[in-house]
Amino acid sequence: MKDQLLIRNATIITLDKHNRIIKGNVAINNGVITSIGNSTTDAVFDDATVIDATGLFLLPGFVQTHIHLCQTLFRGAADDLALIDWLKQRVWPMEAAHTASSIYASARLGIAELIRGGTTCALTMETVNHTDAVFRAVEESGFRATLGKCMMDQGEDVPESMIEKTDDSINESLELFNKWNGTADGRIRYCFAPRFAVSCTRELLERVAKLSKENNILVHTHASENRDEIEMVLRQTGKRNIAYLNDVGLASANVVLAHCIHLDDDEFEILRQSGTHVAHCPSSNLKLASGVARIKEMLDRGISVSLGADGAPCNNRLDMFTEMRTAALLQKINHGPQALPALTALRMATIHGARALGLDHQIGSIEPGKRADLQLLNLDQPHSTPCPDPVSTIVYAAEAVNVVSVIIDGKVVLKEGRLVTLNETEILRDAAGEFEMLDERLTKTGKPRKNTE
Amino acid sequence: MKDQLLIRNATIITLDKHNRIIKGNVAINNGVITSIGNSTTDAVFDDATVIDATGLFLLPGFVQTHIHLCQTLFRGAADDLALIDWLKQRVWPMEAAHTASSIYASARLGIAELIRGGTTCALTMETVNHTDAVFRAVEESGFRATLGKCMMDQGEDVPESMIEKTDDSINESLELFNKWNGTADGRIRYCFAPRFAVSCTRELLERVAKLSKENNILVHTHASENRDEIEMVLRQTGKRNIAYLNDVGLASANVVLAHCIHLDDDEFEILRQSGTHVAHCPSSNLKLASGVARIKEMLDRGISVSLGADGAPCNNRLDMFTEMRTAALLQKINHGPQALPALTALRMATIHGARALGLDHQIGSIEPGKRADLQLLNLDQPHSTPCPDPVSTIVYAAEAVNVVSVIIDGKVVLKEGRLVTLNETEILRDAAGEFEMLDERLTKTGKPRKNTE
Repeated sequence: MKDQLLIRNATIITLDKHNRIIKGNVAINNGVITSIGNSTTDAVFDDATVIDATGLFLLPGFVQTHIHLCQTLFRGAADDLALIDWLKQRVWPMEAAHTASSIYASARLGIAELIRGGTTCALTMETVNHTDAVFRAVEESGFRATLGKCMMDQGEDVPESMIEKTDDSINESLELFNKWNGTADGRIRYCFAPRFAVSCTRELLERVAKLSKENNILVHTHASENRDEIEMVLRQTGKRNIAYLNDVGLASANVVLAHCIHLDDDEFEILRQSGTHVAHCPSSNLKLASGVARIKEMLDRGISVSLGADGAPCNNRLDMFTEMRTAALLQKINHGPQALPALTALRMATIHGARALGLDHQIGSIEPGKRADLQLLNLDQPHSTPCPDPVSTIVYAAEAVNVVSVIIDGKVVLKEGRLVTLNETEILRDAAGEFEMLDERLTKTGKPRKNTE
Repeated sequence: MKDQLLIRNATIITLDKHNRIIKGNVAINNGVITSIGNSTTDAVFDDATVIDATGLFLLPGFVQTHIHLCQTLFRGAADDLALIDWLKQRVWPMEAAHTASSIYASARLGIAELIRGGTTCALTMETVNHTDAVFRAVEESGFRATLGKCMMDQGEDVPESMIEKTDDSINESLELFNKWNGTADGRIRYCFAPRFAVSCTRELLERVAKLSKENNILVHTHASENRDEIEMVLRQTGKRNIAYLNDVGLASANVVLAHCIHLDDDEFEILRQSGTHVAHCPSSNLKLASGVARIKEMLDRGISVSLGADGAPCNNRLDMFTEMRTAALLQKINHGPQALPALTALRMATIHGARALGLDHQIGSIEPGKRADLQLLNLDQPHSTPCPDPVSTIVYAAEAVNVVSVIIDGKVVLKEGRLVTLNETEILRDAAGEFEMLDERLTKTGKPRKNTE
């Protein structure tokens, strides 16, 4: 009986096939949506926990398809650098300085921010080590995530503790897969996370592709974010990045590629034909000066595109409202004011994200039979008033502060602005403390991290 | 005694010449900052109202140099259009449908949003009529504004009620100047606000320039926002926009030009030599697909650039955190990750804005002798933690929700997240109601406003 939830009198932005907006109730039983807009459910749900959503908007939780929870602790500590310097001078040394304790603090901080901003599910690439601690943070928080340890078996200027032998990288990944995939009532799933072609041998990528196909495991990697990176791949393999990934077997509907900024027509065609998913990270792409991805052209060709914030040190937020708005606004520079309208951005942030993760039968829209990953928005605030079109308001005006409640898998994780499963005071204290200690460990290696230094 | 305020134990981001960050107190007497970081002021300020700012960051209130308060009611009602269509199909008809009552509701809504987001001063262009109602809203709210009625004495497809005779436009402006300039303890100042060269006769612009010089009145207009607009000016005058404004006397340190996106080198040189101020509105420029202004090149040349949100229907927020971040990120596309760093964005949002309005001797930084226009930020929230560099955190991570208290002219107008001088419940109700009535008036004219229609 305790697993029944009834949300009453909401304006439901379903994001179903017809993008219907319905006024009414949503009934949830054991984490599954059983009915929408049906007032007769009241009788059946006598013992349900009732949420009065009068005046509120109910929409699917956001699904972010490119995040690094382990990097949340590095927010503001790696500004003003382009990708390769950003990795070598700051992010890799900081990842190498992580302990299980600091990575746990980083993941919890990230999840707290994500939930507060209406994100209920993320695809996240962690660092090479300590991945168990991130799984533990996800499990305890009630968050939904597909995550994997980072795989790196080659590369220049990579800290020693982050370079793996190919066999070890594969074996550790499979151990984590066996231990965590499908746990927490299915909230947790495993993905292979080879960092990017520059950091991985051809053997590693081919073995990952084979294992992915055999065991239906998602692959999450970066591709064609930066011109220098593309040059390195070209020198290393004789091919452009996406063509090379296709060669090693990593172009398929089981692959999510973050960024994909600098592609030629052949590469677009590989993505389209293979059903490979693109995770667009507009803020990160601007902040690292990587470029503006050609998202309108991808969508026009039928390529699958969803959204992610990337990590805190290259954004510096983990906020889907920011990414929807930035994605919609950026495409207008080259394609006019009607390019990437609000509804498209909102679908990229929800159902398209679910599709990229292979979870669109479970989440991403509000429909009977789907898991209840939901957010309730209060748009009755100065910055989101008037509201002649809620989809426009959500994409262009709303912010995380509009999110009042969040439900994941039928459980309330944010209730009227307060985190339920996470102790925010503790998280903020731990994050600050762990960051100071990480900074001390870094200073010993001679890699200062502060912008001001 | 009641006009004494003591802010204790803040981290003070002064934005003075040396960008000093100081821990300590700020003492305010009759609206004027009398000391900073000086613990000995305690004795003198026995009866002061004390604000405990332990753990908080104190910075100058933001100064937005391009706003239209009268348009706040049109938020979300004019998406997906480029400038000229946006004006003719939506914004002008909606402005023409305003009554004194709806414009008052619009201004109050905008001021509530601005204060909540840490903006303490704005340069705002209103519509042709009902400007008294906006002055009244500013006066009552405690907000600081330089504002003027819009001047339009020519133009195609302009609603009849908005086209003025040149004499009437000048005379009404001067009447408003005489009535309002310098009122509310100097918080309110008048500016001439000719809409843009397309909407104004040469005679009007020349008379405005002359009166501006004679009476030291700021001029606030739009320029070179859109390629079609520039073509119209070229056809109409035989000159590029900025060259034409220079010809009529409207290039000077007493002029603020919103946008300035498409300029040639000669126009840059006019701005630099004359000290004309540019109000950069990055979100608006993206949403109307106007383009990306060449701000780094302007700053490198020594041109004065500050920031504004523009109106709600082309942004759709009035939020300086969004504008600082967007400005900083956009310049990196063409100039690399170090272009427009956080500190530059924060100075544009504060002291550079004050300079554009000719108010940098009064506001824009925290220094003894200046008026107390201040905001207190709580950065101890998940999305703004850790905070190794508060300037980076404020520009790249913080949002309006970080603003806990706001002080204008020594008076607290936002206290621990609650508006003091404005009744938010009433404002939200009035805005929704007035928008519905405005929409009904619009429907009668055959101009639907809803995106969904």
